[in-house]
Amino acid sequence: MPVIYIEEASAHAGQAVTIRGWLRSRRDKGKLHFLILRDGTGEIQAVVSKGTVGEEQFARSAELTQESSVVVSGTLRQDARAPGGYELDVSGLEVLQVAEPFPIQPKEHGTGFLMEHRHLWLRSSRQHAVLRIRHEIIRACRNFFDDRGFTLVDAPIFTPNACEGTTTLFHTQYFDETAYLTQSGQLYSEATAAAFGKVYCFGPTFRAEKSKTRRHLMEFWMVEPEVAFAQLADMMELAEQFLAHIVEAVLRTRRAELKLLERDVAKLERVTAPFPRITYEEAIDTLQRKGLPAKSGDDFGADDETILSKEFDRPVIVHRYPAALKAFYMETDPQRPDLALCMDVLAPEGYGEIIGGGQRVDSHEKLLARLHEHHLPVDAFQWYLDLRRYGSVPHAGFGMGIERAVAWICGLEHVRETIPFPRMLYRLYP
Amino acid sequence: MPVIYIEEASAHAGQAVTIRGWLRSRRDKGKLHFLILRDGTGEIQAVVSKGTVGEEQFARSAELTQESSVVVSGTLRQDARAPGGYELDVSGLEVLQVAEPFPIQPKEHGTGFLMEHRHLWLRSSRQHAVLRIRHEIIRACRNFFDDRGFTLVDAPIFTPNACEGTTTLFHTQYFDETAYLTQSGQLYSEATAAAFGKVYCFGPTFRAEKSKTRRHLMEFWMVEPEVAFAQLADMMELAEQFLAHIVEAVLRTRRAELKLLERDVAKLERVTAPFPRITYEEAIDTLQRKGLPAKSGDDFGADDETILSKEFDRPVIVHRYPAALKAFYMETDPQRPDLALCMDVLAPEGYGEIIGGGQRVDSHEKLLARLHEHHLPVDAFQWYLDLRRYGSVPHAGFGMGIERAVAWICGLEHVRETIPFPRMLYRLYP
Ligand SMILES: [Mg+2]
Ligand SMILES: [Mg+2]
Repeated sequence: MPVIYIEEASAHAGQAVTIRGWLRSRRDKGKLHFLILRDGTGEIQAVVSKGTVGEEQFARSAELTQESSVVVSGTLRQDARAPGGYELDVSGLEVLQVAEPFPIQPKEHGTGFLMEHRHLWLRSSRQHAVLRIRHEIIRACRNFFDDRGFTLVDAPIFTPNACEGTTTLFHTQYFDETAYLTQSGQLYSEATAAAFGKVYCFGPTFRAEKSKTRRHLMEFWMVEPEVAFAQLADMMELAEQFLAHIVEAVLRTRRAELKLLERDVAKLERVTAPFPRITYEEAIDTLQRKGLPAKSGDDFGADDETILSKEFDRPVIVHRYPAALKAFYMETDPQRPDLALCMDVLAPEGYGEIIGGGQRVDSHEKLLARLHEHHLPVDAFQWYLDLRRYGSVPHAGFGMGIERAVAWICGLEHVRETIPFPRMLYRLYP
Repeated sequence: MPVIYIEEASAHAGQAVTIRGWLRSRRDKGKLHFLILRDGTGEIQAVVSKGTVGEEQFARSAELTQESSVVVSGTLRQDARAPGGYELDVSGLEVLQVAEPFPIQPKEHGTGFLMEHRHLWLRSSRQHAVLRIRHEIIRACRNFFDDRGFTLVDAPIFTPNACEGTTTLFHTQYFDETAYLTQSGQLYSEATAAAFGKVYCFGPTFRAEKSKTRRHLMEFWMVEPEVAFAQLADMMELAEQFLAHIVEAVLRTRRAELKLLERDVAKLERVTAPFPRITYEEAIDTLQRKGLPAKSGDDFGADDETILSKEFDRPVIVHRYPAALKAFYMETDPQRPDLALCMDVLAPEGYGEIIGGGQRVDSHEKLLARLHEHHLPVDAFQWYLDLRRYGSVPHAGFGMGIERAVAWICGLEHVRETIPFPRMLYRLYP
């Protein structure tokens, strides 16, 4: 008898098969037990009839608790009313383990409780939907760059120098030295873009921010393309194609999961290029028109980003922020040296910044001056300065935080559900 | 005039195009300069004729040093003798930067010097070949699991407990707690396999081993599948299909790179399933027959693995090591409780272990006893014990270290060239 996964049921209609899985729930009706089984690929109802399986197996099935593990054999019967279109008429049942009372019940649990039981919470259909969409987003990111001739060149996690100050960095003893955990692969991608032309890195990044917001994790994944000879305008175009591609891939492959999450897909279907583009100064005007106390020179807070993003039906690109607000490596606009050639892409529906990027300083002299202005250790940046000594070229890139993209596409309130094992302030277990 | 990448030359034969890149080398012959340009996608010879470009541009091209950055325009001319099949007859030349004397010359450099200049060393054609193959290996790993219905569920980097003892762990202050940097995502993948059935995780892992060998890095990438209801035999089959798939993908897409590395591809072409399988005890016999001082109960050293692997023309699976040599979570053979249901896959040609895995203990009682025997903190493992309380099932998985796979497939002596920015003992820069 072939052992199959539930998702393969339609290929075995009418056949005798074996399915291995866990009990989601059980309903008893006289000499029948209706078992809802899950195996990670789907759910199916298995009908256990006392007359068919006999006293002993029927008694065993009566003992099954939520999450008990079983191996059931039987015939797959098409049933239009069944969620997956099939039911299993059980001919034999093997119980691997009767589970202890499962801590997570179909009732309200506090977030702390669920997070403490994250390893079990992941078995819920809602968490399945989110993490399957996450997987598809990651696939779509990689396929996008692979199909466009980018080389994956991963940045190191241990770094000797701090990209944007050391206050929000985790560090570790690295033999005789201190290593910092990367916050971004960008500086390394600048080196590899000068070698490979078009590159991306994709890995975990870390930020020791003592803040508890719905948008922050201590450990999060970033995908960061970097392109030699590219300028800000090229990155705007790449970013909008990239986001449109990801959303399209999720809509194409993960409709069922979006439905389970009650995501309004009409809002995702609008995410096509080109995206609206506004300057920082236009954004300030907009906020002022809305009666907010924003003034030129201010950075945007999460609330400002929410209000701005709600002005548009798709992601909006905000570009040319004041250089004073931005990191030392940002190139400035030749027409307006007080402005950085940078952009943020704000997701719609109040999800805020999901992409940040721009053009990098390519002059050795200017970069050296910037390092000094920002009181950064020039020695640690010698290799980075080298990129401006040996064939410097204009170049640009951006980074997208995977968890924020997942939160937006899934329509989640909080990033904590967007990663299998979230690491937050005071949350390191399991 | 279209701006193209060198790899696109054949689609623009006879046309006027612009190419942006760096100077690999220059040869002068009277009123002609032959520039070899690279742009990350390939190399092309650009012919600058004084008669065509005029005195001024010709003088500028005479100043070009290695790695200088240029934008050249001209007509693509087919030339069977040219490495890529095309040459560019230059009509105009813009010099972005004349590079300072490039530290890496086409001569012998010590390893320390090259590692110190890794950010520039990455521009060499040899490093390109290795890292392009690395990219393809990573793609092939992901495609393999994606195409077989595995869900990518990434494990956390920060962990509260130590999988196999704390002596080789990096740690960091995580607010009020200590976080350890993961050595393996396995324990977490066991949790997610119970949720999703078939999973894999793929990320960086860390080992603070104070050893300097050609096989060790402090930071390395691992791909780790885990399958619910699977047993050791299933993992042997999955591992051999997996490796055969990866090698086939590299042979199909990266022939030119393998050739540049002078890799004997005939040896890779032999890597097809099934692989030979020998027990640990057979392996000990083999070593003894070879006159080595191996005796039953010993673990294999790198030399033993090298000798064993040279007995076969493809990877060999060594299974059922003494349980005493293996980690606390290894299931034992019901027929021989002194043996673990585990396997190592040794790459051929002396490359040693590239895959390790096996079946995990699924009994709560046995796992608890093991934790005590191994003096591990039971509290920190409560979540892991939970997997044996709530629907425990037989399950198995394995892990493959990406860098060792790259070293083997590329035929490299040392793993330091298999990752963009290697982190080794006393090597944290750049
Ligand atoms: Mg911002
Ligand atoms: Mg071993």
